[in-house]
Amino acid sequence: VSRLSEDDLIATLFAPIAGPGGFGLRDDAAIVAHAPDEELVVTVDALVSGVHFFPDDPPDAIAAKALGVNLSDLAAKAAQPTGFLLSLALPANWTAEWLEVFARGLREEADRQACPLLGGDTVKTTGPLTLSVTAFGTVPRGRMLPRTGARPGDAIYVSGTIGDSALGLQLLLPHDTGSLGAVLAAGLDAELQEALRQRYLRPQPRLALRAALQAHADGGMDVSDGLVGDVTKMLKASGTAGRVDLSCIPLSDAGRKATALDARALSIVVTGGDDYEILAAIPRARASEFEKMAERAGVPVTRIGNVLDGTTAPVFHDAEGRTVTFDRGSFSHF
Amino acid sequence: VSRLSEDDLIATLFAPIAGPGGFGLRDDAAIVAHAPDEELVVTVDALVSGVHFFPDDPPDAIAAKALGVNLSDLAAKAAQPTGFLLSLALPANWTAEWLEVFARGLREEADRQACPLLGGDTVKTTGPLTLSVTAFGTVPRGRMLPRTGARPGDAIYVSGTIGDSALGLQLLLPHDTGSLGAVLAAGLDAELQEALRQRYLRPQPRLALRAALQAHADGGMDVSDGLVGDVTKMLKASGTAGRVDLSCIPLSDAGRKATALDARALSIVVTGGDDYEILAAIPRARASEFEKMAERAGVPVTRIGNVLDGTTAPVFHDAEGRTVTFDRGSFSHF
Repeated sequence: VSRLSEDDLIATLFAPIAGPGGFGLRDDAAIVAHAPDEELVVTVDALVSGVHFFPDDPPDAIAAKALGVNLSDLAAKAAQPTGFLLSLALPANWTAEWLEVFARGLREEADRQACPLLGGDTVKTTGPLTLSVTAFGTVPRGRMLPRTGARPGDAIYVSGTIGDSALGLQLLLPHDTGSLGAVLAAGLDAELQEALRQRYLRPQPRLALRAALQAHADGGMDVSDGLVGDVTKMLKASGTAGRVDLSCIPLSDAGRKATALDARALSIVVTGGDDYEILAAIPRARASEFEKMAERAGVPVTRIGNVLDGTTAPVFHDAEGRTVTFDRGSFSHF
Repeated sequence: VSRLSEDDLIATLFAPIAGPGGFGLRDDAAIVAHAPDEELVVTVDALVSGVHFFPDDPPDAIAAKALGVNLSDLAAKAAQPTGFLLSLALPANWTAEWLEVFARGLREEADRQACPLLGGDTVKTTGPLTLSVTAFGTVPRGRMLPRTGARPGDAIYVSGTIGDSALGLQLLLPHDTGSLGAVLAAGLDAELQEALRQRYLRPQPRLALRAALQAHADGGMDVSDGLVGDVTKMLKASGTAGRVDLSCIPLSDAGRKATALDARALSIVVTGGDDYEILAAIPRARASEFEKMAERAGVPVTRIGNVLDGTTAPVFHDAEGRTVTFDRGSFSHF
């Protein structure tokens, strides 16, 4: 395998992804453009091989995930993505083949989301592959959806289905006899298993929900560290209490079967993380309009609870109203 | 040593550095503000422990360097820094003491440059400490100084002195008998050695040169990968040729003594990297005005050569006009 220099590498693989303002990646900096009546929203997320993804994950999936987790943050702020920067620390054993597939995956995701590469930095590391993506988006001035915006009287909504990615991770991790991963591998048919694994590998940021969030939401964030912990974070940041009905949490076919197969699955579903769905607080009076706009956007949304007055931690309860607690509220990568 | 959670860590150490738009680091994203008649310039640079700095460098110097190398890129684009994001991958052996000194160094540099923290991400890594900083700056619309802007007839200028950091690195690296590091350690007095080491440890981005660059420069970039390589890059990107007189390259007292002590020092000076000075192409008719503005800004600038018509690689020559070549044109971290 030939060794490309950093400059060759950038020119060959990454320059074709560059958008206007990226100057073909031939300058030291980029311009991020936006209209005068818009504000620029920025977010950064880092991913480390062996921590946030498996070293042998498909390189195109790693690229799509690095971009996708950042676009999910923008989606939850009701922002329209406009571009990104990539900081890439490569271990000594990188190959041109790996990088080509990585760059292809990055390009596909950037094209699909109309979010071009604007610049980056490539360095070597003695440690694992480490990626840091900075993503840019725009919102009408003053309209970034804040995490702190939930108000008593709001309904709590989540998009899509929760827990698939965390269950997929159980399937991808080595699993001992009797472990949840082993139960799922034995009890779910191959297609459902693959659906769960794909949710872990390839986040689908809910950018389509932007208009509905801008029109109706008081507050929001993305569900990335586990639903229980993220609901707790949003309500704490908003200075509110709340109740969430665990029996309302939307599950996929695979998720429903998994929770029927093994009682341990529910805890993984609600605390496992990597969902990249949207958690939003919607004034109750606007809930049906929000649901209609979400439906027109093709994004399923489900009401799971209520924001309440107070500053106590939110209560999670089952269909009978019994409080449920979890060993750990949130999956933390840290 | 107690183990803080990621959230505690951010709240305690980093939230006090947060500027407006950073929402006290309590949201998933930040707002980067700028005036309607300005454009937003962005740049990202990653640093890996053991590659870009020594693991036992002072934590506050590591923080200042991570921010400083990015501000140097903004300085070379004639941009005014407005804020930054920090992506931090911490190895398992981090300590609260280390992080406190790191955060203090970051805060001091952010305050000094009026460039507040807007957000970030903290993750764990099985490898070395890895930092990625995304820095934001503003320029009047359409006035980012491009790397591609050098024109035949321009004079080539550099700011400050060249090579000190690379010589400082020779002093910091373990040095065998007879090596350049050993010669410098034996031949330079302690104060000069310390001056060289400090240049390596603490880059001083040339932000004060902004007005002079905006008023007079056709093109520019920062000198980070070695002067010879960076001149070559700028002229290639601009589609021009050029000549640089090596005898004109500005040296510090320490640099002059080092090159007098050992003939190997000159090559290190001009190819060694980590200068974080500004390289600029200035129309000859405006050279004296540029020099005056730089002087008023307190930044020494020195004319080192000329941009010429053509697409051949620039020629580096000595005082007698004899062409000098270098084994490697540029120090690459990659």
